[in-house]
Amino acid sequence: MPVNYQPLTSEQIFQIPNIFLNSVIAEIRKKDRKDLTLITLPENSTVAGVFTKNKFCAAPVQICKEHLQSANHKIRALIINTGIANAGTGEIGYNAAKEVCKNLAKTLNINENQVLPFSTGVILEHLPSEKIINNLQNLSNDLSNSSKAWFVAANAIMTTDTVPKIYSKQVKINENLTITLNGMAKGSGMIHPNMATMLGFLAVDIAIPARVLQQIVSDVANKSFNCITVDGDTSTNDSFILISVPNASNKNISAENLNSDEISILKNAILTAATELSKAIIRDAEGASKFITINVYNGADENECKKVGFSVAHSPLVKTAFFASDPNLGRILAAIGYAEVANLDVNKIKVYLNDLLVAENGGRAATYNENEAIKIMQNTDIEINIDLAQGSAKSTIYTSDLSHDYVSINADYRS
Amino acid sequence: MPVNYQPLTSEQIFQIPNIFLNSVIAEIRKKDRKDLTLITLPENSTVAGVFTKNKFCAAPVQICKEHLQSANHKIRALIINTGIANAGTGEIGYNAAKEVCKNLAKTLNINENQVLPFSTGVILEHLPSEKIINNLQNLSNDLSNSSKAWFVAANAIMTTDTVPKIYSKQVKINENLTITLNGMAKGSGMIHPNMATMLGFLAVDIAIPARVLQQIVSDVANKSFNCITVDGDTSTNDSFILISVPNASNKNISAENLNSDEISILKNAILTAATELSKAIIRDAEGASKFITINVYNGADENECKKVGFSVAHSPLVKTAFFASDPNLGRILAAIGYAEVANLDVNKIKVYLNDLLVAENGGRAATYNENEAIKIMQNTDIEINIDLAQGSAKSTIYTSDLSHDYVSINADYRS
Repeated sequence: MPVNYQPLTSEQIFQIPNIFLNSVIAEIRKKDRKDLTLITLPENSTVAGVFTKNKFCAAPVQICKEHLQSANHKIRALIINTGIANAGTGEIGYNAAKEVCKNLAKTLNINENQVLPFSTGVILEHLPSEKIINNLQNLSNDLSNSSKAWFVAANAIMTTDTVPKIYSKQVKINENLTITLNGMAKGSGMIHPNMATMLGFLAVDIAIPARVLQQIVSDVANKSFNCITVDGDTSTNDSFILISVPNASNKNISAENLNSDEISILKNAILTAATELSKAIIRDAEGASKFITINVYNGADENECKKVGFSVAHSPLVKTAFFASDPNLGRILAAIGYAEVANLDVNKIKVYLNDLLVAENGGRAATYNENEAIKIMQNTDIEINIDLAQGSAKSTIYTSDLSHDYVSINADYRS
Repeated sequence: MPVNYQPLTSEQIFQIPNIFLNSVIAEIRKKDRKDLTLITLPENSTVAGVFTKNKFCAAPVQICKEHLQSANHKIRALIINTGIANAGTGEIGYNAAKEVCKNLAKTLNINENQVLPFSTGVILEHLPSEKIINNLQNLSNDLSNSSKAWFVAANAIMTTDTVPKIYSKQVKINENLTITLNGMAKGSGMIHPNMATMLGFLAVDIAIPARVLQQIVSDVANKSFNCITVDGDTSTNDSFILISVPNASNKNISAENLNSDEISILKNAILTAATELSKAIIRDAEGASKFITINVYNGADENECKKVGFSVAHSPLVKTAFFASDPNLGRILAAIGYAEVANLDVNKIKVYLNDLLVAENGGRAATYNENEAIKIMQNTDIEINIDLAQGSAKSTIYTSDLSHDYVSINADYRS
């Protein structure tokens, strides 16, 4: 059960007329659950992405990068399977994913490099590409631009997720222009920045030139998907994809025609969408019973803030204390102390649990009251606020607790 | 229950005639368990240590460093409490530990800076220094150099440890010289290098000059206590202390009189002792059901090997797979891939489970047999062998699995 997260229902999802989706059961993951999804985009779409920095990156990640470049971001189709990650599969895995792209291109009458493949699931096992290829015709026969198709797709890309993560919002850019942002993400374990999402897709119905789109997706990822962690494990398959499609009813307007205020609104809308999707991943993190927001502020630079935030977020001892609702808050101090940030002055650092001052002057605050802390720890949404007293930079990291269920889920994942 | 570890019995411990120990119940941790230990050393002893790099280092760590320097390593007494770490306690904590040293110095008629204080336990809570001070006379009245006193002390320094970690061995340096090495360590959670032990004490009955002793303790720590990890949490209190006492029956011989072969034997004996103590910590790690040895070899340098080893050792996904005895070995590849080692060529890396080749050429080995892997995963002692194919450096990291018991222990620690 996710922590304070209610996924959108089908009825709450807006449509984007020229994006079509379909999902089927290809029996890659389980016999009774949709596990293969196709998304098609209209001509003149632009797609940009950021991908895992894991050196053992999956074959589909490698192909995505190649295709985005060679097709100059003019992507027409995304094919996503769950069950098998197609990572750690060497040349065989690469060829299997290429074969899928080639067949899909033929089915849709587009170029092979206009297809982006995505896989998520178990690493080191081979992709049953035949199962995918055999379903391509089915998939393309029943494509739909309905709200329900988005809902079904968001479910079909899940692995250990307990709920689909869907985002759908309309945002007014100016008096005459309202855009729609539809997104979905999957992932709940092996979640750590670069990228944290495993898979995230966000579409916006306004034309954005490739170069600008690539910049936006990088900036947004750094402030959203790269700020969450469940277990510190950077996946081999992480991908965050930003899709820009023209919208005829908005006269196919391009972001190039917007003024700087309007561009700001657009970028913020995209960042908000990505942040909501990444927070949803943490709310549905494997075994999560708490949603923990770690605000690190007054750091010398953003990197320093992130380092401290992740050090706290990754500490199994901090995470188990939150699971137990036990204000064993010295563990937070220990995690700050080993964050490997130079020049930290521990005597100036202040640590708060929500608004409760826990530590200052290198030790427990005189005003600290354990009963108040116990009360705060009972909540499912808790903030750790850390004032580094070094400068003016800040960063926010989202994480979950470490529970028995995390161990159970990951000890049983393959069975 | 530790993994394949049988602690020494009292009878198996050698004596070092001029080192005296005593432990009492000071009711700092629990009402019915010894939690305060005093160790006294003869004149002309030399002591050196390495300490946590955690910025929130505990008050006693800070004082140890000051006293070692100002007393020029001529330490006469060690006072060790469990229950409270005296970390994150600011100036109050510092003064409390100083007060203990001052009182103990008076009791023993030595200088205050000849006392080293050690604390381990809960962070952020204040040291009940009165309870310690009130027991100093008791402690010093009943000091003993018996084997049993070592055994009792090794038990009294424990917190969540399930067994005492004791090392005792006699090593022949040459025809006429046999030395005794006695050591003890505690720690089973918040275990990560710099230092990993929380507390480790090793005494050797041969005079070693301070400068040499300090070099030995640093070198040895890097190859032993700094190569183990349970949860990646670097404690605020980690200390590894090497004690050199003269031995009258060996004519108070000093290491300065040894030739280079003999020095080698001595250093190896110390390294072996420290390695055995650090491995014992992992065998008794919180919730451990597996003892995992990660050998990383053919790296460009030792640091690179350590990075890869720790990346695998810290991965909660790898650790839960081992807990489940599930050869979900792609998780090892993922952890190697995000170790942030530059220039790794994933196509050259080979990964073995014991002797079973798991991965090569960027994917699963053609010869890999899942049934053999399942059989290996059933063992309690398992090796992960990683050939980086970069150079000739190597490093070995020891770690444990991540089990339900780890979560339980750390969710309940304070209660």
